[in-house]
Amino acid sequence: MPEPIPLITLLTDFGLQDHYVGVMKGVIYQINPQARIVDICHNVRPQDILQAAFLLRVSYGYFPKRTLHVVVVDPEVGTSRRPILVSTESYYFIAPDNGVLSYIYQTGSVGEVREITASHYFLHPVSQTFHGRDVFAPVAAWLSRGVAPSSLGDLITDYKKFTIPVPTLVKEDILLGRILYIDRFGNLVSNITRKNFTEHLNKSPGKRFVIRIGDRNLTRICNSYTEGSEGELIAIFGSSDFLEFSINKGNAAKTLGLQIGAEVLCKVA
Amino acid sequence: MPEPIPLITLLTDFGLQDHYVGVMKGVIYQINPQARIVDICHNVRPQDILQAAFLLRVSYGYFPKRTLHVVVVDPEVGTSRRPILVSTESYYFIAPDNGVLSYIYQTGSVGEVREITASHYFLHPVSQTFHGRDVFAPVAAWLSRGVAPSSLGDLITDYKKFTIPVPTLVKEDILLGRILYIDRFGNLVSNITRKNFTEHLNKSPGKRFVIRIGDRNLTRICNSYTEGSEGELIAIFGSSDFLEFSINKGNAAKTLGLQIGAEVLCKVA
Amino acid sequence: MPEPIPLITLLTDFGLQDHYVGVMKGVIYQINPQARIVDICHNVRPQDILQAAFLLRVSYGYFPKRTLHVVVVDPEVGTSRRPILVSTESYYFIAPDNGVLSYIYQTGSVGEVREITASHYFLHPVSQTFHGRDVFAPVAAWLSRGVAPSSLGDLITDYKKFTIPVPTLVKEDILLGRILYIDRFGNLVSNITRKNFTEHLNKSPGKRFVIRIGDRNLTRICNSYTEGSEGELIAIFGSSDFLEFSINKGNAAKTLGLQIGAEVLCKVA
Repeated sequence: MPEPIPLITLLTDFGLQDHYVGVMKGVIYQINPQARIVDICHNVRPQDILQAAFLLRVSYGYFPKRTLHVVVVDPEVGTSRRPILVSTESYYFIAPDNGVLSYIYQTGSVGEVREITASHYFLHPVSQTFHGRDVFAPVAAWLSRGVAPSSLGDLITDYKKFTIPVPTLVKEDILLGRILYIDRFGNLVSNITRKNFTEHLNKSPGKRFVIRIGDRNLTRICNSYTEGSEGELIAIFGSSDFLEFSINKGNAAKTLGLQIGAEVLCKVA
Repeated sequence: MPEPIPLITLLTDFGLQDHYVGVMKGVIYQINPQARIVDICHNVRPQDILQAAFLLRVSYGYFPKRTLHVVVVDPEVGTSRRPILVSTESYYFIAPDNGVLSYIYQTGSVGEVREITASHYFLHPVSQTFHGRDVFAPVAAWLSRGVAPSSLGDLITDYKKFTIPVPTLVKEDILLGRILYIDRFGNLVSNITRKNFTEHLNKSPGKRFVIRIGDRNLTRICNSYTEGSEGELIAIFGSSDFLEFSINKGNAAKTLGLQIGAEVLCKVA
Repeated sequence: MPEPIPLITLLTDFGLQDHYVGVMKGVIYQINPQARIVDICHNVRPQDILQAAFLLRVSYGYFPKRTLHVVVVDPEVGTSRRPILVSTESYYFIAPDNGVLSYIYQTGSVGEVREITASHYFLHPVSQTFHGRDVFAPVAAWLSRGVAPSSLGDLITDYKKFTIPVPTLVKEDILLGRILYIDRFGNLVSNITRKNFTEHLNKSPGKRFVIRIGDRNLTRICNSYTEGSEGELIAIFGSSDFLEFSINKGNAAKTLGLQIGAEVLCKVA
């Protein structure tokens, strides 16, 4: 029997205005009174699988080894889409099989992917609209008590993944990225990593560049928000090493009027 | 001395933008450092007792036996309205005596109702505006440590209840329900249960029906959100077995422009 | 080796729409799996140090002795502003040295203030934008495991404080206060304490007074919200003994159209 799971995290689009998250926790504690639960975030935009995948990507690695991450963003709840359990060397993940774990698959560290079919671990009757309560929470709780992954269902290989949008090269010398995420502060997080940028910059003899975002051009990367004067747009490598755009004491997304998907162009000079 | 309480839940209208919920937890931990606390929801609309009663109704049963549910939606804080402790076979409830436990009384499982008068368990001086901190949290904490309910105050029978709005029969063949709750996704939750609906439907020889909500007519009940095409309004039995109205990948409440209290008419054909 | 810390609280401007708070907790649990964490509030207005200071002021004292309060509102993250550890007789505080602990300094109970320089306790590489994760969370976790404050860095005396706005006397008989805080219910919390008011009132032979806020005049202080009729503006001493302005079943801030900083004038008659 495997060691019990130390921690369960929850990442959902349930919001905090209803009872959904509280009820999931109630179900977990009913099964495992010793469970420890941490909220990663419940304000994923309704049914936005890509946003949830991104939030998981920048969060999961900061938790103790053997943490079980439960992700419930599930537009197809009530259909035949499968609940799955994914094991990597360091973590477990439970989610609907809708691509929300695509970043995890991409890490190359995935060991097993199982379809969860052991319905005797579900809460019955299973509703058509709230598998967070009836499927994902109870399975997470049983797993956290030490139930073996192999007893939850068989291995599968045809799980869904979507292609993570990565920066592309345009006209040889322009790196084209996209805004992936906008946070509470209005910081615009692109999909251009420090590594992407550095490799691209190596194409410029003088290491000079212009970054175009919205209607602005930037020619340097700052080391802190305060390097910009108040109200100035700056580029900075954020806490997950993505190139971000921020305004010191302001809101870059609102000021520039940009949305997720907006283009970022890095041109070496 | 009774067994300690395993879990305390909190359901309030305090929101999460202030310190109120955090302070209640501090008070609980000061008295019972081993307490385990779960948030059901803190975003009840300010002073909306009916909404809190509904959220409690669809949540309380998913928690471990002997959980203590603390409900603080309290428009009359600072007056002589009584704090009460209600015990059922499986749970404890602490709340102001303002009807917020009406659904619980309706279950028929209520054993004792006590007025909480043992003010030596309160935090002193008791403020006029924050009994969540000064009355409900400390009493919950002491109870969770094993203080006997009987030591908190005497039994009462004249506690407040309001009549839960139930569907009514109009013109013999029309069942008239109301929207009770609207969730984050814009799902419209009515007070028509699966049982209400099934019994009503038995009046139709062909089991055919029309459901009217807002300006729409529906003639079937779906088994999952995705049975509707994108943007289509559907009827479905939700996670608490109430008839709900949803739009696949949309927001039914916004699209139909409906509020709590809106009529739902089920006519057999 | 000192006794372990029983509880860690978090007070930030990170909001709940992103992963920031969840990640801080993950980091804490990685270092101290036995940590107990309570959220005071994460919805401080972005970078509003004064608001965070106020929320800490009305919260910290309700937690168990030896609680470690972690405050992360940090407009200068990534610069040379110092992380500090403050010890009082009853509590610990970790925060950026930007004045957010000014109310704590004012209590006169501060024992030690240390600059946190022991970077081997940080999460490496330390990002330029998220010291909540890389500096404050791990240091809090190590401290909660029993690491001695003295091992975190040297004592300092030149920490930043700002002057807490206090009521002032205008024209001898008028006490001029300011709105410090507006809560979820629209209650307007002034910086006039019960003590300030009582002392001022002693100047009136008949103990009569007029309080002016916005375009309204009030001549009494109520003992509960419900002493006002529905929609009436009332003055009341709130849960932290500040003079507050509320509307029974209404929102005083919206009705009066007032913001933080608005004047409150108390004139004895």
